[in-house]
Amino acid sequence: MRCELLSDEEFFCVHKIMKTLEWKDNRLRLLDQTQLPHEEVYLELGSYQEVASAIREMRVRGAPALGVAAAYGLALGARSIKAASKEDFLDQLARVADELAATRPTAVNLSWALTRMKRIAAVASNIPSIKAVLLKEAQLIEAEDVEANRRLGRLGSDLVEDGATILTHCNAGSLATAGYGTALGVIRAAWEQGKRVHVFVPETRPLLQGARLTAWELSQEGIPVTLITDSMAGHFLSRGAIDCVIVGADRIARNGDVANKIGTYTQAVLAAESGVPFYVAAPTSTVDLALASGEEIPIEERRPEEVTHFAGRAIAPNGIKAANPAFDVTPHQYITAIITEKGVVREPYAERLPKL
Amino acid sequence: MRCELLSDEEFFCVHKIMKTLEWKDNRLRLLDQTQLPHEEVYLELGSYQEVASAIREMRVRGAPALGVAAAYGLALGARSIKAASKEDFLDQLARVADELAATRPTAVNLSWALTRMKRIAAVASNIPSIKAVLLKEAQLIEAEDVEANRRLGRLGSDLVEDGATILTHCNAGSLATAGYGTALGVIRAAWEQGKRVHVFVPETRPLLQGARLTAWELSQEGIPVTLITDSMAGHFLSRGAIDCVIVGADRIARNGDVANKIGTYTQAVLAAESGVPFYVAAPTSTVDLALASGEEIPIEERRPEEVTHFAGRAIAPNGIKAANPAFDVTPHQYITAIITEKGVVREPYAERLPKL
Repeated sequence: MRCELLSDEEFFCVHKIMKTLEWKDNRLRLLDQTQLPHEEVYLELGSYQEVASAIREMRVRGAPALGVAAAYGLALGARSIKAASKEDFLDQLARVADELAATRPTAVNLSWALTRMKRIAAVASNIPSIKAVLLKEAQLIEAEDVEANRRLGRLGSDLVEDGATILTHCNAGSLATAGYGTALGVIRAAWEQGKRVHVFVPETRPLLQGARLTAWELSQEGIPVTLITDSMAGHFLSRGAIDCVIVGADRIARNGDVANKIGTYTQAVLAAESGVPFYVAAPTSTVDLALASGEEIPIEERRPEEVTHFAGRAIAPNGIKAANPAFDVTPHQYITAIITEKGVVREPYAERLPKL
Repeated sequence: MRCELLSDEEFFCVHKIMKTLEWKDNRLRLLDQTQLPHEEVYLELGSYQEVASAIREMRVRGAPALGVAAAYGLALGARSIKAASKEDFLDQLARVADELAATRPTAVNLSWALTRMKRIAAVASNIPSIKAVLLKEAQLIEAEDVEANRRLGRLGSDLVEDGATILTHCNAGSLATAGYGTALGVIRAAWEQGKRVHVFVPETRPLLQGARLTAWELSQEGIPVTLITDSMAGHFLSRGAIDCVIVGADRIARNGDVANKIGTYTQAVLAAESGVPFYVAAPTSTVDLALASGEEIPIEERRPEEVTHFAGRAIAPNGIKAANPAFDVTPHQYITAIITEKGVVREPYAERLPKL
């Protein structure tokens, strides 16, 4: 099956994949990922405040999907702005963008998409035209994301051998993007080429995106999955059970340091220890050339209750202090290659990433 | 406070620690650890079959505690044996011992304690006398374990600096032993000496012994705790937040390779990567000189439902395959020192462990 021959609708039909988000009847229709895999609930969001809440509560997550959701959020915000002049309108729009950008600090795609949206708004001639171009731009960002994922999937699939057992982390799938996925896009492309792959999926505590989302997404397509706890990856790597690791990214600094879901750094160190290649798959919208290294990436600290509780039930004694950094930084020297839609990049990243 | 001046009862009173197990009214009284930290339920076990079930279901766990529980199990089993001759009695006793030894394959303390019990039985002159010495021997194994833990705790505490932040894994505390604990025994001894310590406790999926047992045990004594998910240890190690790692062991091979709760190998690799010392605390009853290396240690594979479910609730799509190795092996080169009641041992372990 060649996915480039299919329209988006055909693609999502063939792949039995629920759309992460889509624009429909003047609203942002969003699959509520906190309810998966047990229930498929769609939210219909009519205001930017609702979009901001959905992002904060991780009903939509994954760096590329956050960029698309924020773009639609700003398009919705623009519709509610009442302003006498274009300047006043753009001022109010900037405040809405700031509010959306502040929902989650680590993934750069949020601010990347919002900056792109504000730039388009600034060149439009009048207020009705701004509102129209903002919606068009959001739709373009969505379409470009699917296309970038398909491209990087195809490029990355050359790195996956027939019969490979692949370790991933969290969910870098179609649910984390506008469609197809980054790390899972690579796996999906290899599978579509007829390569027999098997994926080890760490559950990804605290919010279990691996168990709930990745295991679900892959099994929908019939790709063989083995679910493990996060603490088992090292064991299987050390025993030679894993051929390569492929993860997504929330922000990539100019030198190739990668911020991604907490636990990614651990997998990178373990892969290096076992001589297993460690790949990061992300569209170029995740690369932040403004940051010299990963030390400058802000790490979101989420509520301790995500760690002390599970599905509303306490798993630790009352009053126990818990830390909850949602991301970690993997230094570039652990990364074998970064797979983007514009090519597969290797060291020296500081020289090669800016050239993309 | 000097713990060696206290009787066992005073000790458990001062430390507000529930006894893991004790012999009372001709039964083994056992704290059901699957119910902690929410409920303190005691089981009264009157047969070896009940003891075997409790071990299998992990109502009692931790290598040293398993040795003591198995010894009492065999003493209970002996009471129910009807035999015409001493030979017949010892045959039947050996079968009970085999059944108890098979409950969990990785921790060596089970077979260590049962072998010791069978040896004592063989030299007793008649059946009533065998039954009596078996109970006495089980009580001796229990008392020796508490004493060994206190000793190794004192020896290991020299390695802990005032103000240290310590990472542990799973529960190697008084709940994993007859009392005081191994890794937590070292931390407890340092704390009793007035050293200000802070302990990072990984929750330890799938069965959450860190969140449920270690966080509870340490907070009962007022020792500061930060609960984390297993995937966060690498992040905190890489940021310089951890001064040393101290874990327990389920079996130690002659060359110093250590089998311990799944995730231990990962922590050892991460500690080495950050230049942080990695200590293993265990009584000599956990050392298995019969095994040349960790490759020979059997790794228990438990039910996949422990991984696909969390606190009784499904977290993954129905029918997903899961792996569930309960232990991993940490090669000796990652281990800075092994703390035993007979001394702190460093490389070359193959030479020094047999000398203990």
